[in-house]
Amino acid sequence: MSENSFTWQVRVYFEDTDAGGIVYYANYLKFCERARTEWLRRLNISQQDYLLKQQGFVIVDLSAKYRRSARLDDLLTINCVPVLVRGAKLRLAQQILNEQGELLFDFACSLAYVNFKTGRPQPIPDAILAYAKAQLVKAEASLSSQLEH
Amino acid sequence: MSENSFTWQVRVYFEDTDAGGIVYYANYLKFCERARTEWLRRLNISQQDYLLKQQGFVIVDLSAKYRRSARLDDLLTINCVPVLVRGAKLRLAQQILNEQGELLFDFACSLAYVNFKTGRPQPIPDAILAYAKAQLVKAEASLSSQLEH
Amino acid sequence: MSENSFTWQVRVYFEDTDAGGIVYYANYLKFCERARTEWLRRLNISQQDYLLKQQGFVIVDLSAKYRRSARLDDLLTINCVPVLVRGAKLRLAQQILNEQGELLFDFACSLAYVNFKTGRPQPIPDAILAYAKAQLVKAEASLSSQLEH
Amino acid sequence: MSENSFTWQVRVYFEDTDAGGIVYYANYLKFCERARTEWLRRLNISQQDYLLKQQGFVIVDLSAKYRRSARLDDLLTINCVPVLVRGAKLRLAQQILNEQGELLFDFACSLAYVNFKTGRPQPIPDAILAYAKAQLVKAEASLSSQLEH
Repeated sequence: MSENSFTWQVRVYFEDTDAGGIVYYANYLKFCERARTEWLRRLNISQQDYLLKQQGFVIVDLSAKYRRSARLDDLLTINCVPVLVRGAKLRLAQQILNEQGELLFDFACSLAYVNFKTGRPQPIPDAILAYAKAQLVKAEASLSSQLEH
Repeated sequence: MSENSFTWQVRVYFEDTDAGGIVYYANYLKFCERARTEWLRRLNISQQDYLLKQQGFVIVDLSAKYRRSARLDDLLTINCVPVLVRGAKLRLAQQILNEQGELLFDFACSLAYVNFKTGRPQPIPDAILAYAKAQLVKAEASLSSQLEH
Repeated sequence: MSENSFTWQVRVYFEDTDAGGIVYYANYLKFCERARTEWLRRLNISQQDYLLKQQGFVIVDLSAKYRRSARLDDLLTINCVPVLVRGAKLRLAQQILNEQGELLFDFACSLAYVNFKTGRPQPIPDAILAYAKAQLVKAEASLSSQLEH
Repeated sequence: MSENSFTWQVRVYFEDTDAGGIVYYANYLKFCERARTEWLRRLNISQQDYLLKQQGFVIVDLSAKYRRSARLDDLLTINCVPVLVRGAKLRLAQQILNEQGELLFDFACSLAYVNFKTGRPQPIPDAILAYAKAQLVKAEASLSSQLEH
């Protein structure tokens, strides 16, 4: 992770684990979504406000590599780095690391900004666009090549 | 369970379990809600329709006793018996049993029918009222006393 | 809440909400379990350690009153107050409040300390027993009567 | 979907939706895992048995495209088609369709068969290998090219 990138910490509770003794595979996506939400909140953006305005981001696609398992009580660190932003589209790379700094989960997703009433894409609001673009530069410099797919 | 009462079957998947090797305690509430939803669907009621009309049931209170644990792959049977229905209020008793007929989970909850815009209670629609009342009679005869709290 | 009681904060994310626009009813139990876990962690107790020793708390019963709904982006405060501790049994009262200090969720649960291999209750470890008992005194003084059922 | 491929139906409940009024993005992975579990169960394989033997499948990677949203009360159909099976590795393509036959979710994942004690891959049991290989032939013939990445 870049020194300057946004990070968010998540603790693993019983609710996140499964009978295999590790975090259930879909729950890593929940952790990444929490980090994305907090990444937007740092810009003072509340998703509740956008819901009321009937607009917001929806997921378009994602890909993930599971490298090591997280376990009960683990304290995870998640980052969120924009790798593409243009028009209605935002692409983010995210990683989840454990307290030892080991990479557990390597993730990328594309989001579209849409009007919930019509389902149509619309331009990402200027504040978010500027915020994402400012970090995009850092991302290009700091992300390892395998994340830039 | 009464021979005549509504029952619904639920399979336990990895998503439902936790690192203790058993079903996570909050997930029994999900199973009960699935059975309640199907109990209403038998009356041809779709909750999506009610959502669009901005009205529906909200939970008011609940109580639960955990008697035995459900495990991965278990096939559970859940019932749903009205024990009180009046005005905006519906009280249901529910039990979860395993394939051996053992009681795992003993549950009761009160629901209020509300207008989502105002948050105010409003009378339960006639069709649901009649449906619940018809089964209420059976419930009084068939439910053991500890469920009628 | 008592000034001295343990509290834990939880943010509401999309994963916690449902199509009714509010937190899904079973997820309040997740929030309470996070607070209980952190209440034990303050004593330096990791549940993962107990899992490895094949022992720990299991839920026996619970009751809950839903007073107001939590919504997306809400920052919730949850407390955890022992109201009974004896032998293998621990009873806790928990409340969830919103940022305005309004009571959303009133909860109590009984836990049994068990050996996971045999399923048998066994005495709560001394460190936890002493910790719970020390707060029990405060609880008796600070909890309102309706929580001491 | 091929006429001969395995399919599994899943109903959308409140627990699956979020405040956006649609199924929460991580929950499509739960639905796919239910279908994979039932695909194995058709071979009379219980994952609980494998857990007891300390072996089973773990997820290695996945990719997903979100095409349309599922909503409360939707009845979804999910398939599960092996597209590669060799040694310890099994790759599956899965799709989720609604009752109108519209494609909502396009998914592929790679699983590794591992010994849970050592974390090491080990050969997929013969019965599963034969089962997957038998369907692999069909898959090659029936799957559209965009799923064979």
